[in-house]
Amino acid sequence: MGPSPPPDEAALVSAIGDELRRAGRPADLSDDCAFLRGATQLVTTDTLIEGVHFQLDLDTLAQVGAQAAVQNLSDLAASGGGAGWLVWSLCLPPNLRTLEAVRALTRGFAETAAQNSATVVGGNLSRMPGPLTVAVTAGGPLAGKRPLTRSGALPGDGVYLTGALGDAALGVVEPTPAHRAARHAWRPHLAEAAILANDPGVTACMDISDGLLLDGARLAKASGVSLAVESGAVPLGPACAAVGERHRNLALRGGEDYVLLFTARSCPVGLKAWRIGEIRAADPAGALFLDGRPERPGGFDHFVEAH
Amino acid sequence: MGPSPPPDEAALVSAIGDELRRAGRPADLSDDCAFLRGATQLVTTDTLIEGVHFQLDLDTLAQVGAQAAVQNLSDLAASGGGAGWLVWSLCLPPNLRTLEAVRALTRGFAETAAQNSATVVGGNLSRMPGPLTVAVTAGGPLAGKRPLTRSGALPGDGVYLTGALGDAALGVVEPTPAHRAARHAWRPHLAEAAILANDPGVTACMDISDGLLLDGARLAKASGVSLAVESGAVPLGPACAAVGERHRNLALRGGEDYVLLFTARSCPVGLKAWRIGEIRAADPAGALFLDGRPERPGGFDHFVEAH
Repeated sequence: MGPSPPPDEAALVSAIGDELRRAGRPADLSDDCAFLRGATQLVTTDTLIEGVHFQLDLDTLAQVGAQAAVQNLSDLAASGGGAGWLVWSLCLPPNLRTLEAVRALTRGFAETAAQNSATVVGGNLSRMPGPLTVAVTAGGPLAGKRPLTRSGALPGDGVYLTGALGDAALGVVEPTPAHRAARHAWRPHLAEAAILANDPGVTACMDISDGLLLDGARLAKASGVSLAVESGAVPLGPACAAVGERHRNLALRGGEDYVLLFTARSCPVGLKAWRIGEIRAADPAGALFLDGRPERPGGFDHFVEAH
Repeated sequence: MGPSPPPDEAALVSAIGDELRRAGRPADLSDDCAFLRGATQLVTTDTLIEGVHFQLDLDTLAQVGAQAAVQNLSDLAASGGGAGWLVWSLCLPPNLRTLEAVRALTRGFAETAAQNSATVVGGNLSRMPGPLTVAVTAGGPLAGKRPLTRSGALPGDGVYLTGALGDAALGVVEPTPAHRAARHAWRPHLAEAAILANDPGVTACMDISDGLLLDGARLAKASGVSLAVESGAVPLGPACAAVGERHRNLALRGGEDYVLLFTARSCPVGLKAWRIGEIRAADPAGALFLDGRPERPGGFDHFVEAH
């Protein structure tokens, strides 16, 4: 370790933004997706790496392929996108350069895509002198009249979740067969996104990929507001609930549940969602309050914590 | 090594195609790009990996970023696409998780994008317990009325190149400073692609990323024809030419020059191109003839040869 801590993800993203501006092509890097052609088409990219995002002694290759699709389709949902297309780049270490391994990865990826009405349109293969790496890009049309962003939350809005949290993390910290199965019950909330994108009362949205508190603080910061969460109102996934209250922390700080976090004056009609808190005026912007007390956001920063 | 050789890239791509069909979502995986929405928008993905596609003792990080953009924009050009958008996924090993490294990578990537009128719209960062990996996806509109594919070449067509070959490979096999500079003179042939895409006499196109003979055989196979190349007609890059005829082999079998290989009844008006051979009837489909003699295609198959 050197004398100063390594930069976190936010600092690195900020450096990228600086260089894009310097090249004369500034980009808004703050949302789950990028917006193309007057924001009628969305595109997003995300990568799964063995030893960082999955472990091959716990997951099958088909499950890795499925997660690669879920994670990217969830980012589309987070920005109010609909099912569209997927491309992937498979970087295969020597022991996985087999027809069986490629078939299993593809089966999980393609079946998850098909279940969500998305189409795998192409890809790329490469040798990898390192861990199995699956880089995915997903695109799709807007599901409503406008994209959903992280930056529109207003004081007085309710804060909602479209699903329960904690089961994905439980499958990592206590990887019993039952917990692993519960972890892999994730799905992209595209149907929920379509309802949110068509409701003008929805002010901000993102998906929970790095943990409720960390992602919630990011939404609050992007919106220039504070976020107050009642921990007892956060719905626990069925596996977490079975284990008991001692695992509520996983629902607050675990990642990869891929449910949507959104803010709105009231819950959209016809949508099943849990109200877990409210938006307050900046105190300061990005501040997080848990059960009334200031809380340091904690979650899964890919650059700070190991999995 | 086991008793049977590992599958080559074509066999693995074929296995992927099988699984996509089985999931009910068949895709045409044979071209440099995928075609979206009635083939008016193109998308392509490609990945650069340290130790496979570049070496950090020979390339600067800015050069790696630049190559990542060039390679993907070249795939757009190969399918008759125009400049559009880029996203990337940066997978950073511990020693490159610094602001300086990320700035340098972004500078090369963003400047190359801007020089080609393309826009970096987003990206993703991840920890990598392995080599530096840069996964890129590029998209753009058709530059003409139809996409260019590998599958339309007809007997009697001329075979053309939009640029000289060999310098990219020379910079790998004899990495002097001058040769490294010549290697990095590559650029995506987007302007040439726009001319080709608007000429109805152009029957097939692809870019030379894995070597003229291997890529040429792929085009011939996709078109169901044979391809005859005159080795003396293949233009040598300036660095290769300076080294002399003994390096003609690099122009035939070296990769990554990113020039376009196309077939047409005659060279489009206003385009600088070299006629290097002709298309013949299948003998059998995919057969390659070099200076009149049958030739086994050789080039850079990422799954068979080391770089």
